[in-house]
Amino acid sequence: MSAVIRVAVAGVGNNVSALLQGVRYYEERFADCDPRVPLPGVSQPRIGGIPVWGVKLVAAFDITPAKIGLDLADAVLTPPNNYPRLDVTLEPTGTTVLRGLVPDDADRVASAAIEQVAQVLRDSNAEVLLYSLPTGRPTLATAYAEAALAAGVAFVNCTPEPVAGDSAMMARYVAAGMPLIGDDLASHLGTSVVHRALLGLLAQRGVALLSSYQLNIGGNEDFRNLRDLGASKRQSKLNALVQDGVDVSQVDVVPSAGFVSTLGDQKVAFLNIEAVGWAGTPVSLDLKLRVQDSSNAAGVIIDLVRIAAVGRRTSHKGFVAAAAPLLKSPPHGQTMYPPATAVASLEQLNELAG
Amino acid sequence: MSAVIRVAVAGVGNNVSALLQGVRYYEERFADCDPRVPLPGVSQPRIGGIPVWGVKLVAAFDITPAKIGLDLADAVLTPPNNYPRLDVTLEPTGTTVLRGLVPDDADRVASAAIEQVAQVLRDSNAEVLLYSLPTGRPTLATAYAEAALAAGVAFVNCTPEPVAGDSAMMARYVAAGMPLIGDDLASHLGTSVVHRALLGLLAQRGVALLSSYQLNIGGNEDFRNLRDLGASKRQSKLNALVQDGVDVSQVDVVPSAGFVSTLGDQKVAFLNIEAVGWAGTPVSLDLKLRVQDSSNAAGVIIDLVRIAAVGRRTSHKGFVAAAAPLLKSPPHGQTMYPPATAVASLEQLNELAG
Amino acid sequence: MSAVIRVAVAGVGNNVSALLQGVRYYEERFADCDPRVPLPGVSQPRIGGIPVWGVKLVAAFDITPAKIGLDLADAVLTPPNNYPRLDVTLEPTGTTVLRGLVPDDADRVASAAIEQVAQVLRDSNAEVLLYSLPTGRPTLATAYAEAALAAGVAFVNCTPEPVAGDSAMMARYVAAGMPLIGDDLASHLGTSVVHRALLGLLAQRGVALLSSYQLNIGGNEDFRNLRDLGASKRQSKLNALVQDGVDVSQVDVVPSAGFVSTLGDQKVAFLNIEAVGWAGTPVSLDLKLRVQDSSNAAGVIIDLVRIAAVGRRTSHKGFVAAAAPLLKSPPHGQTMYPPATAVASLEQLNELAG
Amino acid sequence: MSAVIRVAVAGVGNNVSALLQGVRYYEERFADCDPRVPLPGVSQPRIGGIPVWGVKLVAAFDITPAKIGLDLADAVLTPPNNYPRLDVTLEPTGTTVLRGLVPDDADRVASAAIEQVAQVLRDSNAEVLLYSLPTGRPTLATAYAEAALAAGVAFVNCTPEPVAGDSAMMARYVAAGMPLIGDDLASHLGTSVVHRALLGLLAQRGVALLSSYQLNIGGNEDFRNLRDLGASKRQSKLNALVQDGVDVSQVDVVPSAGFVSTLGDQKVAFLNIEAVGWAGTPVSLDLKLRVQDSSNAAGVIIDLVRIAAVGRRTSHKGFVAAAAPLLKSPPHGQTMYPPATAVASLEQLNELAG
Repeated sequence: MSAVIRVAVAGVGNNVSALLQGVRYYEERFADCDPRVPLPGVSQPRIGGIPVWGVKLVAAFDITPAKIGLDLADAVLTPPNNYPRLDVTLEPTGTTVLRGLVPDDADRVASAAIEQVAQVLRDSNAEVLLYSLPTGRPTLATAYAEAALAAGVAFVNCTPEPVAGDSAMMARYVAAGMPLIGDDLASHLGTSVVHRALLGLLAQRGVALLSSYQLNIGGNEDFRNLRDLGASKRQSKLNALVQDGVDVSQVDVVPSAGFVSTLGDQKVAFLNIEAVGWAGTPVSLDLKLRVQDSSNAAGVIIDLVRIAAVGRRTSHKGFVAAAAPLLKSPPHGQTMYPPATAVASLEQLNELAG
Repeated sequence: MSAVIRVAVAGVGNNVSALLQGVRYYEERFADCDPRVPLPGVSQPRIGGIPVWGVKLVAAFDITPAKIGLDLADAVLTPPNNYPRLDVTLEPTGTTVLRGLVPDDADRVASAAIEQVAQVLRDSNAEVLLYSLPTGRPTLATAYAEAALAAGVAFVNCTPEPVAGDSAMMARYVAAGMPLIGDDLASHLGTSVVHRALLGLLAQRGVALLSSYQLNIGGNEDFRNLRDLGASKRQSKLNALVQDGVDVSQVDVVPSAGFVSTLGDQKVAFLNIEAVGWAGTPVSLDLKLRVQDSSNAAGVIIDLVRIAAVGRRTSHKGFVAAAAPLLKSPPHGQTMYPPATAVASLEQLNELAG
Repeated sequence: MSAVIRVAVAGVGNNVSALLQGVRYYEERFADCDPRVPLPGVSQPRIGGIPVWGVKLVAAFDITPAKIGLDLADAVLTPPNNYPRLDVTLEPTGTTVLRGLVPDDADRVASAAIEQVAQVLRDSNAEVLLYSLPTGRPTLATAYAEAALAAGVAFVNCTPEPVAGDSAMMARYVAAGMPLIGDDLASHLGTSVVHRALLGLLAQRGVALLSSYQLNIGGNEDFRNLRDLGASKRQSKLNALVQDGVDVSQVDVVPSAGFVSTLGDQKVAFLNIEAVGWAGTPVSLDLKLRVQDSSNAAGVIIDLVRIAAVGRRTSHKGFVAAAAPLLKSPPHGQTMYPPATAVASLEQLNELAG
Repeated sequence: MSAVIRVAVAGVGNNVSALLQGVRYYEERFADCDPRVPLPGVSQPRIGGIPVWGVKLVAAFDITPAKIGLDLADAVLTPPNNYPRLDVTLEPTGTTVLRGLVPDDADRVASAAIEQVAQVLRDSNAEVLLYSLPTGRPTLATAYAEAALAAGVAFVNCTPEPVAGDSAMMARYVAAGMPLIGDDLASHLGTSVVHRALLGLLAQRGVALLSSYQLNIGGNEDFRNLRDLGASKRQSKLNALVQDGVDVSQVDVVPSAGFVSTLGDQKVAFLNIEAVGWAGTPVSLDLKLRVQDSSNAAGVIIDLVRIAAVGRRTSHKGFVAAAAPLLKSPPHGQTMYPPATAVASLEQLNELAG
């Protein structure tokens, strides 16, 4: 089995910049190291034998005029992208950014356009299509999922648009014997996972929640958009907090509390928990978390695209269980999957792939 | 099996005030409720059938002149105690505070004095002796453990002094067929457990720790003392952070960063984590936690004394495994117990007791 | 000169609840004290001889159906108002809430309706009209200002709508010899004043500002509305930060970062400052401020209505200088007033009134 | 008047590293700029005509063996110093670090040793002696002040040891016609000045203080020492908060809440204020401040040494008023100076020097 996977991307934003530069970062510093050395910032150095630097971007779609026609290595550094320029050598990738799908006035995408995308996927021998456009365009999410399905390519949905959560679409991927992974990235180390851990800790101790809120601010395009398009994001973030014994009725989440341009691609979250401990006495917790937003995405994408590719190579159908902890809204919640779906844990994947 | 356990206490400080008042708090508000109603601020409403309000304090020792000779209900409200006066009715307990053990100039305790304590324990039909004196008096911790052993009473050590961690003492409790539980309370929801959860989360995600610190301040006697006596406390708190995959070499803990009198019995902790995520980009987390210090202790003590009493009634010897998650330094770390010790999980205890 | 001033209110929201209950709070606890005793939470115990409890609400307008027709003492406690019920006796005021002005479909207010309000002001012998409706209704702000002018009553504008900042309106008040005070309350101790103090401190020390942001969240109607109507508020808050030597080009303000219902009438602000000190080394500051939002308003309103009433009694025309530090956007900035305006400092007012 | 001042230093720690490197930082980047360009991180680009880069270190004393005998440019980078190595060219200064004063077993310094220091000061034509040893050595502070007095050199005391606060010593400097400036640096932008500003703001608004605390942590030698030697520091920091209308009885300051080695020369402060606003409702403020500790010192030292030198050149005796805002404990508080002292504001100094 080849140790390189071929990935196509829809959307050439900060996430793809973090992915492309980050893959180089680890390749330059760790490719020659003993494979048992842990990689800082990476949870799975290898999945199914694929190392972090085994991800090759073979096709790319975007609709920003300034990016179309550029080599991907140049496009990822083009504004409004503002992920930092890492200290790595970025050589041309040989992959040119193509014009992506655009909905018509009735918010539909022509099937001919979808077929064109499918053809690019076939021609590039892509194994996975990573969907990473700005939140709030469900029509496009569905259209790219159609294209991947037509081309026999696994699909990974980074956004909260319901694709893996659309049971009809999932059924078609299962029927086609192709992995469909989504929806919505759980950040590598983001507000949701920290908030979830703390709420779970309280519940486990019997400390009763009075109220809690979570605010997120940032300075990238995602935050500029979320101010208006935050409803699906808010629900997805609330979903991410649901767990046994935790009552989220008193929890409020503001996905984009503000676009603060000076933050650039950094994300800052403020989190408050007010609760009641022994004998009704108060417990109060305040937290500030600062992360590189798109690094947080890339740290999860690197696993999802490898899970998707290895899933495809080992004939898994539909959702792959190993992806569930990496998503805010996996299909049917965190614990149940459609019975028709071949369930594979990370261990099973590694075994099958090995 | 009686639904009331008989507990003696060494040290009548804020912890015992929180225990005594808190037991009344739940009794007044919840004793007549459906037992399936969760109790806010309590993780185990019943252990081995014993409800929260099934804890009776039958003997008490202290060396503060102002407390000696008082009924326990008055003594817990006597300065320097500064746990808040809860909104409960506090009737006389019928238990008078006796003069406790005092070391001589050579820091030894006379065996006659120990035998006097043992006799009080026998006369009061105590099942458990709860050791809750200020940190930093290992001689007294050992002396009270001797007295409990002589009287055939289970022992619970709230402090970081090594009692359960003293393998000779543990062997003698095992031989006597009596539970010995310690050392050092893990707060019900304290800095250690939150710090531990966050460091564990980072490790699980592959986010590499750069540095971390934890500061604790408070205004009760514990904090006045800890400033000088913090070394054993610091190590115990560092122990509490050790877990698989977590490197604590860059973690610093200041158990008492300051005595701030206006805080009274409140404890405030400040926690910082600096780490490295995907591609070397920074992750930064700051947290402030405010709790009622002695409520935090009582919320764990309520479980430990019930585990100890049920352990004694069901003939468990030495350490009882169910207590491990409630302690900062259980014997031999969090996962291994001496083979000679009868291991009982909370489920086993409940089954045996039922 | 009477030690009681007669105030009419347009808008019976939390601010008026805080004003009415707060006046009673101080009256019950301090009216019989030595007048030299400082009042906690009040900067000026007396202005022109008027004590804090010398404020009588003699007329009130609102458009919430549930409030109209109620005695003011009941109306201030009617939802959506959620200012806490203070521990004071609230007897009926004798003032019934009347139906307030409503714009027509062309966003105009009929002059007959304005005259009706003016007549109520005359009939009640009001000295001051306090305008305290939700932000974002400039037409109504202007209409009430017209009514006050017609009735010969001083006007205080709590909102960022430009009334005192409208030079034509100011000229008419000056011509009529009546005080016109606004715009936009500077909170008694709010985010703006803290942010301003810290930015000023940096500038004074030569510490160079890199970036700064300010987020505000709350759970009252003001925050529910501000999410949409925040533009004028944002500019008013930025105005409040302008001062000598401070460059606000890198400062961002989010007046309503989120409506968090569990906060009720509390406001929470998060503030960050990143700067550069000696030799280019970093200075970083994070602050969280929690206040009772409407107390913050009432603590300033109590001064503004007394300044307005004393200004009217002592024949001051237009803006009264003593009000400038209590406003976010006083006319012509913080330091210059229209030359036609009689300028009166607090000291001058006290002298004239005495 | 020469635009270069000649400064001797007692103590070659991080402060002197920050001073030496920082002077180069500004020289390299700004010496050729229009003098009206503000210098980031500097409050006074010129004092009495002396620019920031007009400070020449002409003699140096220390007792760390590893530093003695080195050129000052090498000594400032020698551990335990841990101020960061700035991006500047550091050429040899030509000044060799000499062995400094050491007290004998009776904590006295021999007068012969003091005379030796005085002779070095004379030989080097120093105008100012900057005393910057670790806190807690009052004997040495006094001894160096004696040496400066003997040599006719102005003295600047960075530490809380009472030198300027010793009225006998001040009288001798006044008699000798030499400036004596101290005690204890107010950080350029440190916790005290921020704490003071916020407490002052509350008082000005009539918001009543309930309680406040301030914690400082760091990882340099100052923090390692302060844990034990914090008493004089604590009082000096409390002095720095005293101002009109501010009651500091409920304020607690912990100068060194902890030595956290991973912080290096960074200082982190946590500050809390609990207060009462309008009608008894709560105001709560939490702040975290992170600064480069020794930059904070150097940003003030750069002004103090210029004030001292210009004071000496213009024949000012004793304390120079312009220094008061830069000190935590100026003699006789912030507002009163001994009448025998020639008072000079910064404006007067600039005028006299020009």
